[in-house]
Amino acid sequence: MKKHNFYAGPSILSQYAIDNTIEAIRDFDNMGLSILEISHRSKQFQAVMDKAQALFKELLDIPEGYEVLFLGGGASTQFAMVPYNLLKTKAAYLDTGTWAHKAIKEAKLFGEVNVVASSEQDNYVYYPTKFEVPTDVDYLHITTNNTVYGTELRRDLDVPVRMVADMSSDIFTRPIDVSKYDLIYGGAQKNLAPAGVTFVIVKVDALGKVDRAIPTMLNYETHVKKGSMFNTPPVLPIYTALKTLEWYKELGGVKALQQIDEEKARVLYDAIDNSRMFVGTVNPDSRSIMNVCFVMKPEYKELEQEFIDFAGTKGIMGIKGHRSVGGFRASLYNALPLDSVKVLTAAMKEFENNH
Amino acid sequence: MKKHNFYAGPSILSQYAIDNTIEAIRDFDNMGLSILEISHRSKQFQAVMDKAQALFKELLDIPEGYEVLFLGGGASTQFAMVPYNLLKTKAAYLDTGTWAHKAIKEAKLFGEVNVVASSEQDNYVYYPTKFEVPTDVDYLHITTNNTVYGTELRRDLDVPVRMVADMSSDIFTRPIDVSKYDLIYGGAQKNLAPAGVTFVIVKVDALGKVDRAIPTMLNYETHVKKGSMFNTPPVLPIYTALKTLEWYKELGGVKALQQIDEEKARVLYDAIDNSRMFVGTVNPDSRSIMNVCFVMKPEYKELEQEFIDFAGTKGIMGIKGHRSVGGFRASLYNALPLDSVKVLTAAMKEFENNH
Repeated sequence: MKKHNFYAGPSILSQYAIDNTIEAIRDFDNMGLSILEISHRSKQFQAVMDKAQALFKELLDIPEGYEVLFLGGGASTQFAMVPYNLLKTKAAYLDTGTWAHKAIKEAKLFGEVNVVASSEQDNYVYYPTKFEVPTDVDYLHITTNNTVYGTELRRDLDVPVRMVADMSSDIFTRPIDVSKYDLIYGGAQKNLAPAGVTFVIVKVDALGKVDRAIPTMLNYETHVKKGSMFNTPPVLPIYTALKTLEWYKELGGVKALQQIDEEKARVLYDAIDNSRMFVGTVNPDSRSIMNVCFVMKPEYKELEQEFIDFAGTKGIMGIKGHRSVGGFRASLYNALPLDSVKVLTAAMKEFENNH
Repeated sequence: MKKHNFYAGPSILSQYAIDNTIEAIRDFDNMGLSILEISHRSKQFQAVMDKAQALFKELLDIPEGYEVLFLGGGASTQFAMVPYNLLKTKAAYLDTGTWAHKAIKEAKLFGEVNVVASSEQDNYVYYPTKFEVPTDVDYLHITTNNTVYGTELRRDLDVPVRMVADMSSDIFTRPIDVSKYDLIYGGAQKNLAPAGVTFVIVKVDALGKVDRAIPTMLNYETHVKKGSMFNTPPVLPIYTALKTLEWYKELGGVKALQQIDEEKARVLYDAIDNSRMFVGTVNPDSRSIMNVCFVMKPEYKELEQEFIDFAGTKGIMGIKGHRSVGGFRASLYNALPLDSVKVLTAAMKEFENNH
């Protein structure tokens, strides 16, 4: 039976990326060796790294003065690297949920943290956009998409300071005005690659301004200078990322992806809004097009597990909601076909008719 | 043409590990999904993590009180994590080359570093074993195998303090008395997995003794408490590591690997020692069985590139020496068959006869 992969991350990749990855593990670039067992210093892998960085810049229209890095350690390591490298005395953070919370915790180890707004009191069901940012902070940190709560900021804020953004789960879903950011980072295991690589877009001029000593591997300058090859990078995930980027270009780039993604989200939110049984958990103006969170209405609440099981019989996987929200979460990352969304909405309709 | 993979790292993996990795990318554990696109919180991946940790402990006979972690960031990140977590005031380091040097540099950010011995004056051609370790240091840090220079310590030292060891390139090549160490770490891309995962064996009691605040991801306690699942781990490299460990067990464990490795090294060192043209660069009592460094004798020096090209025609790859030593380096990791070594020694003989 065909499976429909709604996992929140690691999550669905394109068949093009998967097939090419298998081929490279079998025989990489006609070397007669697997990509799993070749030197990262080989000219064949250097070409992969160079192409992945170039295509990343091209697709997001990244201006001069920025570099793209591929690092290990996950976005969770970035929570500490960002303040280690950029927080001189004070930074502003926007609290939009679990991941923002973790980023705030790490920043407090390095300086004063001003939480400019939070939707915690409302269990993070909306994305706060009305707040003042003090002009004397080193940066404003935001989490553009909140995988756990299903909220998203689908534009670049106008604020009087430069921004740092965790875009783990919505990179490559819309054009970004990168010039508004000093740094954009994310775990690649949603819209780019398998688990194990973290992307960083960094304005080179923003680095080297703090007084503290930074361990070599935690210093972005180390990786900028060496083109992400200071130490052995996560070779295979970077190769798969390149294949995903090639596929994005073939599809028409981020504007095309944005259209496709918005259409997929519209289909699912429409089904939820027109349902007798299901209801969305997020304020409509804050809804994520990547992670759609919904629950059963109170009178049907006890049917939630039954629906997950029923969906399973249709090949629908990974829709159990995060424990902080409950109910269901359908993640509609770039590689998820519209057909899978339609299988899900059909299952919702059928289940509703059965009860 | 069959290729013989002598790369220093990332490096050769067993066909068993490669074939199983391909199969899991095609369809993991009969889920109908690729291992590249499933949640690390799935019960199927949790089983991989549990088995890999258990088999790691079993094969190395790791005593109670130690945990095995699989982290991102590479051994280079460990150079900072070790002193971040373990250096209270003063640590002893043994300087055996490039990697030890890097570890020393990071430790100096956290406290006093006492370099107890160094073979730098002799271009690191021997492994220093005669030195005093002050009893008031928090640990002695050693690099057991030096990939760049081809030296190795093939036993566990007797010193009056606990040790921390970088075993990136010789883990699983001999039994280790783990009880002598507070921590053993290494990049997995030599004897275990593709690039992207770092193993750590840590004595849990040794943690939590420093006063400084440690960023969450750099704190070993974070990962011990969460069984290496605090954040998304490098899923695929961990799966391949499990397959390598299964293959090691099938071969008979570390004692069997030790015999095989010593035999492969003996064959190559014998060929070098009996050659008119080639000569080893390392003192015989310090020779690594993993990375065999050799050069052409002065009168044949100009033939080095010609030999690399000639070896290439036999399918021999990755034998160009590191720039710090020059000449040749043949890495004989666990997955390299004895036959590949014999192809290399035959090529050396044939080349010698031709000149």
